[in-house]
Amino acid sequence: MRWVLPDYIQDALPSDAHQLETLRRRLLDAFRVRGYQLVMPPLLEYLDSLTTGAGRDLELRTFKLVDQLSGRTMGVRADMTPQVTRIDAHLLNRRGVSRLCYCGSVLHTLPSTLTATREPLQLGAELYGHAGIEADVEILHLLAEVLRLAEVPASRIDIGHVGLFHALAARAGLVPGREEELFDLLQAKDVPALHDALAGVAEPVRSALLALPELYGGPEVLEVAAARLPQDAEIAALLGELRQLAAALADLPISFDLADLRGYHYHSGVVFAAYGADSPAALALGGRYDRVGAAFGRARPATGFSLDLRELAWHLPCSPAGLGAVLAPLAEDPELAAEVAALRARGGIVVTALPGHEGTWNEAGCDRQLVKRDGRWTLVPLQGE
Amino acid sequence: MRWVLPDYIQDALPSDAHQLETLRRRLLDAFRVRGYQLVMPPLLEYLDSLTTGAGRDLELRTFKLVDQLSGRTMGVRADMTPQVTRIDAHLLNRRGVSRLCYCGSVLHTLPSTLTATREPLQLGAELYGHAGIEADVEILHLLAEVLRLAEVPASRIDIGHVGLFHALAARAGLVPGREEELFDLLQAKDVPALHDALAGVAEPVRSALLALPELYGGPEVLEVAAARLPQDAEIAALLGELRQLAAALADLPISFDLADLRGYHYHSGVVFAAYGADSPAALALGGRYDRVGAAFGRARPATGFSLDLRELAWHLPCSPAGLGAVLAPLAEDPELAAEVAALRARGGIVVTALPGHEGTWNEAGCDRQLVKRDGRWTLVPLQGE
Repeated sequence: MRWVLPDYIQDALPSDAHQLETLRRRLLDAFRVRGYQLVMPPLLEYLDSLTTGAGRDLELRTFKLVDQLSGRTMGVRADMTPQVTRIDAHLLNRRGVSRLCYCGSVLHTLPSTLTATREPLQLGAELYGHAGIEADVEILHLLAEVLRLAEVPASRIDIGHVGLFHALAARAGLVPGREEELFDLLQAKDVPALHDALAGVAEPVRSALLALPELYGGPEVLEVAAARLPQDAEIAALLGELRQLAAALADLPISFDLADLRGYHYHSGVVFAAYGADSPAALALGGRYDRVGAAFGRARPATGFSLDLRELAWHLPCSPAGLGAVLAPLAEDPELAAEVAALRARGGIVVTALPGHEGTWNEAGCDRQLVKRDGRWTLVPLQGE
Repeated sequence: MRWVLPDYIQDALPSDAHQLETLRRRLLDAFRVRGYQLVMPPLLEYLDSLTTGAGRDLELRTFKLVDQLSGRTMGVRADMTPQVTRIDAHLLNRRGVSRLCYCGSVLHTLPSTLTATREPLQLGAELYGHAGIEADVEILHLLAEVLRLAEVPASRIDIGHVGLFHALAARAGLVPGREEELFDLLQAKDVPALHDALAGVAEPVRSALLALPELYGGPEVLEVAAARLPQDAEIAALLGELRQLAAALADLPISFDLADLRGYHYHSGVVFAAYGADSPAALALGGRYDRVGAAFGRARPATGFSLDLRELAWHLPCSPAGLGAVLAPLAEDPELAAEVAALRARGGIVVTALPGHEGTWNEAGCDRQLVKRDGRWTLVPLQGE
């Protein structure tokens, strides 16, 4: 059965592909008019470029290949964000702000969930060069606009802060490997394992780390956090950032989750996950990742989000089944040619009838045809289908 | 140097990416209004699906990966045409004509020429279900239209016929491996090696095969061919097809080359290569491949063409360097927001000024700014950059 695809890999047939293309254009246009410039990094890079600064989880997801030209190991990108960061840091080399966007396929060795694809169509926007909270506010408003344009307005945007975790982990005096383990436990919200892992950690850091999974809800959670976490300048500043976000995003359905560290390990500050009306899984993930650019020779503040366009398009209302195409006879007639050209110029679909396929044109979406009546080419309902 | 890309692999930075996206939309729209429906096959398939019916040359070009879920060998597509054929044969399962189009990245293990990329952005159109020459005529007119829309009108379209070669090779009584060798020699126009390879072949087939590399030029070449090739019904019918094409394509700059067997080994009939004004290499290749569908459970007549959008976009005149973007202050002002929204709704690019980046906004393409004058938001040239 040579037509069977690997698991978690799909074709997009005409109606799905049309939806994807429509949504792709709509979102890229929204990015464009806001100054986000399109870039197209390659599918293939040397493995160390793809995964530098991005953590072990991304490396495990990346398909590896041998380059027949250099003998070096290459990877098929599993995430475009580090590639776009490379472009900002090394190729554009701007002094000020860069706003970049992208849309392309990425491949994952294994699906991230039982319903995920191994070939997401990753679409995203990134803002480089500005460390202030204004950049995060702009990115979160842009994300909300993207979901609105996709006709699945955000029902909830969960905001966390990786910096809080790192500040507490640093106080816990963990060796680097243990910190990563703790990160994974928090990400999984595995509280019993978290208790075990923190057995040797001194108070008040131990209680603070154990409190994180309970610190979720509306902006009032930030006040609870201020009471339960160590009261020092660093942590107060991080909570202050979240308070500023809450104030600037009052128009969005935001909530806070201080143990929500999802996304890739490269995130370093504010992180977020957006949900649509009826989706149990997050539709988009993003956040701040100020340290990735350094791996490409230039540390730059960075924040952005990305999503799987396939997942998003799935929520789009179906376009009407019939395409409303017009069937035109295959004839050498300048008047016919002019009529066909005029219909097409207005965006109408006109299919040329090849001989011998009578009775099959509804398959191609035709519901009308051009026929000559009283010396004029006229549109009439398609007969005999 | 983690920012170095593998050889023959490139980023598309903002101005190139914008050109590619503009051309992509223009060509996909041209396909759409002619009834060519967009499909998006996956980047990854089991290797035998990708290369079935498509010959050894495609397999050598295909990157191989192991599927961690099934243990089977997968390939990253090196050509989308067999994938689209699978979709027509197995998934759409139409009785009549299918017109399909596609645009996506493919990967090649090695570049096909010293100037080629290993990641072409393959764009193409395929017409299934019609064996008559009308389908080839439609496809060749569509190809000419695509080149016109890309602002590099066809300067020459070379037409050949793989069927002529196969008819002669069958008469030569070659074993299958030898036939492939002969195909490669003709493709390379290696006449001395062709002489050697044909040493044991009887006349008049030997002379006919040796004549092929000399049979190129205008439609008059078809009469020379009729005189120099064996005069039987099969060969007369194949030359007859080419004569019909010459008559139907009188509006295009066509020529014939009966030893031009380029493209992949799956082609079975009329084949063609299109050239633009100043390009020594072909911009698009195509032809008839009636046998590929059978590998996917359903033999269907098939003809089409494809091209590398990156190569084509390279010929597009550059858009003006400046983007003409507008800088807007970061301010909470409903009148400003309305003005920004109106500019964006008309397709204008409006960038929000984040604080502390004065003097860098020309990097982002800004040449004007919105300022409040006499109580109204007004566009003025951007100062102080």
